[in-house]
Amino acid sequence: MSRSKTFFTAGPAELYPRFEEFLQEFVDLQLGSISHRSQQFKDIYQHTDEQLRELMNIPAENAIMFTGTASEIWERIILNCTELETFHLVNGSFSKKFYSYAASLGRHAHKMEKPMGEGFSYAEIEVPEFAELIATTQNETSTGVQTREPDINKLKRGNSSKLVAVDMVSSAPVPEIDFSLVDTAFFSVQKSFGLPAGLGVWIANEACLAKSEEISTKSSIGGHHRLPELWKQSRNYQTPSTPNVMGIYLLGKVAEDMNNRGIENLRKETDAKANKLYKYFAGKEGFSIGVEKEEHRSRTVAVINTERPSSEVISALKERNLIIGAGYGPNKETQIRIANFIANTPEQIDSLIKAFDELF
Amino acid sequence: MSRSKTFFTAGPAELYPRFEEFLQEFVDLQLGSISHRSQQFKDIYQHTDEQLRELMNIPAENAIMFTGTASEIWERIILNCTELETFHLVNGSFSKKFYSYAASLGRHAHKMEKPMGEGFSYAEIEVPEFAELIATTQNETSTGVQTREPDINKLKRGNSSKLVAVDMVSSAPVPEIDFSLVDTAFFSVQKSFGLPAGLGVWIANEACLAKSEEISTKSSIGGHHRLPELWKQSRNYQTPSTPNVMGIYLLGKVAEDMNNRGIENLRKETDAKANKLYKYFAGKEGFSIGVEKEEHRSRTVAVINTERPSSEVISALKERNLIIGAGYGPNKETQIRIANFIANTPEQIDSLIKAFDELF
Repeated sequence: MSRSKTFFTAGPAELYPRFEEFLQEFVDLQLGSISHRSQQFKDIYQHTDEQLRELMNIPAENAIMFTGTASEIWERIILNCTELETFHLVNGSFSKKFYSYAASLGRHAHKMEKPMGEGFSYAEIEVPEFAELIATTQNETSTGVQTREPDINKLKRGNSSKLVAVDMVSSAPVPEIDFSLVDTAFFSVQKSFGLPAGLGVWIANEACLAKSEEISTKSSIGGHHRLPELWKQSRNYQTPSTPNVMGIYLLGKVAEDMNNRGIENLRKETDAKANKLYKYFAGKEGFSIGVEKEEHRSRTVAVINTERPSSEVISALKERNLIIGAGYGPNKETQIRIANFIANTPEQIDSLIKAFDELF
Repeated sequence: MSRSKTFFTAGPAELYPRFEEFLQEFVDLQLGSISHRSQQFKDIYQHTDEQLRELMNIPAENAIMFTGTASEIWERIILNCTELETFHLVNGSFSKKFYSYAASLGRHAHKMEKPMGEGFSYAEIEVPEFAELIATTQNETSTGVQTREPDINKLKRGNSSKLVAVDMVSSAPVPEIDFSLVDTAFFSVQKSFGLPAGLGVWIANEACLAKSEEISTKSSIGGHHRLPELWKQSRNYQTPSTPNVMGIYLLGKVAEDMNNRGIENLRKETDAKANKLYKYFAGKEGFSIGVEKEEHRSRTVAVINTERPSSEVISALKERNLIIGAGYGPNKETQIRIANFIANTPEQIDSLIKAFDELF
């Protein structure tokens, strides 16, 4: 069935173009019934693992593990990779939530905070001496602010004894994260992978594993999805408890398709679409770009200021079956958010711009 | 597409007969793309909530909440409903895991343990004085042993100041749990609800909420899926983080269909199928019932001893596209497990018995 609506929402989002085909395969193969201890499941996990490694250039030494959601991974990282102190770069609602998870788990959680719409550059970041973990958000879904990959790399090089965690929930697989430097990163599948929600992906290196093993001799690293067990099982393409088999299968198929299209091509296409959007709104009366500094503007979630209430803009577009998002939290009425995920084709972005031209 | 294989596995399991129809609706309505903050999502949550309340007789005072998996709920219950001491009735691998989660989370975890294949009756249970929680497993998927509902009710009546948690992962909605007595219960959707894995359902009462609020003033109740936040959001048919929207939608449709068929009819059908299976294997040469005491035999997962290696039995049936499970853990080769979920029709059970008759 053809889709009547096009979603430019920041997640759940437009589904990957071949989603329905992959889902039908899952149904036809009766994969919803297979045991997660079977060779058939192991083969599915292995396929997804291999396709993600190719797509995101993840070294063999790192583990790729699955959880229920990316929010769960915030907690797993705090529990498994920190004992006492954390440090968070906060510039929006999701980086703040990561920080609040650390505080809730009894960690001495430090933060450096920026107003919504502003980003971080390496030179200005002062890392507290005893922080064990530096938590960065590569793409702040709430504000459309990105942290550039070179700044993340410098952050690790400048603090090599600390673990660096990268929230790439709403940007993976677009940013070129250097997994030989970064210790852990994570994402959800309902963003740029264009899949229904219900699966988080956690990538971690051996330094994270060593840290969790060390902490576990002194204090609790949690009961569920403890890193040493997730890690050990992942090496055999297994999971400690029954996973979202459908999500893992579909993710592998989408990642394979992305590999066939070539990640470099997809990155170029993403950049071209983002540039077109930003250029358009820079010159469009009644609208302006939400993030002032060009280097901090997200490639996958464009946040745009609107002089009209966002609800008016959203409603008018909805009548044309084009679904965009409101600003987040306090910016609900004064901003709109437009996802520029891989599933959002160049033609869709053109249609959206055309609609803005005609309507506003 | 018609299914070529029939699954009698204990989860992931045979999918609900109307699963594909409901999935197609989900796809056609583009529900994989909708915002989990939209009214459309709230309506889906509300529908699932209402259908589950009707199906399982859950009072309005209790909250129905969603997690990634039932194993996650073990951890949430320990974190939110206990501060220091827990007590676990252990008679198989899953009840033991619940116990080990409590120990991993630093609780003083007590247990009363039975050999695999044996169950608990109320009269023999001695509850430690300072345990805050009694953890029972209504249906032990690993051994096919059940705890009868009247015993669970007596356990609560005899220990009214303690919270009682019921693992009904592989039996819900078949057992008649008295939610005016039991404080918290949970299940997964890949068992008797006949859905793909990836969603856990957590039911809790106000005593659990009060306990979590009390503990949170003194120590950590976790960072993710904290009961007070899950609870508050559930009252507005919302979730703290992006949930498995597909799983929640499909669960609501399956529960609605079960309500239309009538839970009493489904319970009678389940009992009739279970009786047929047990009667058959009691008289079948080379096989015998795994659980000696009739009152402790599971209605939804029949565990059968086999004189032939289980792998031979499983392979022979597989050639006829009938998929059954091996025994769990140490009983892998000496037992088989046959799910008798709602999705396993009386005709399927008859076909399986016929195949045993012809093959062995």
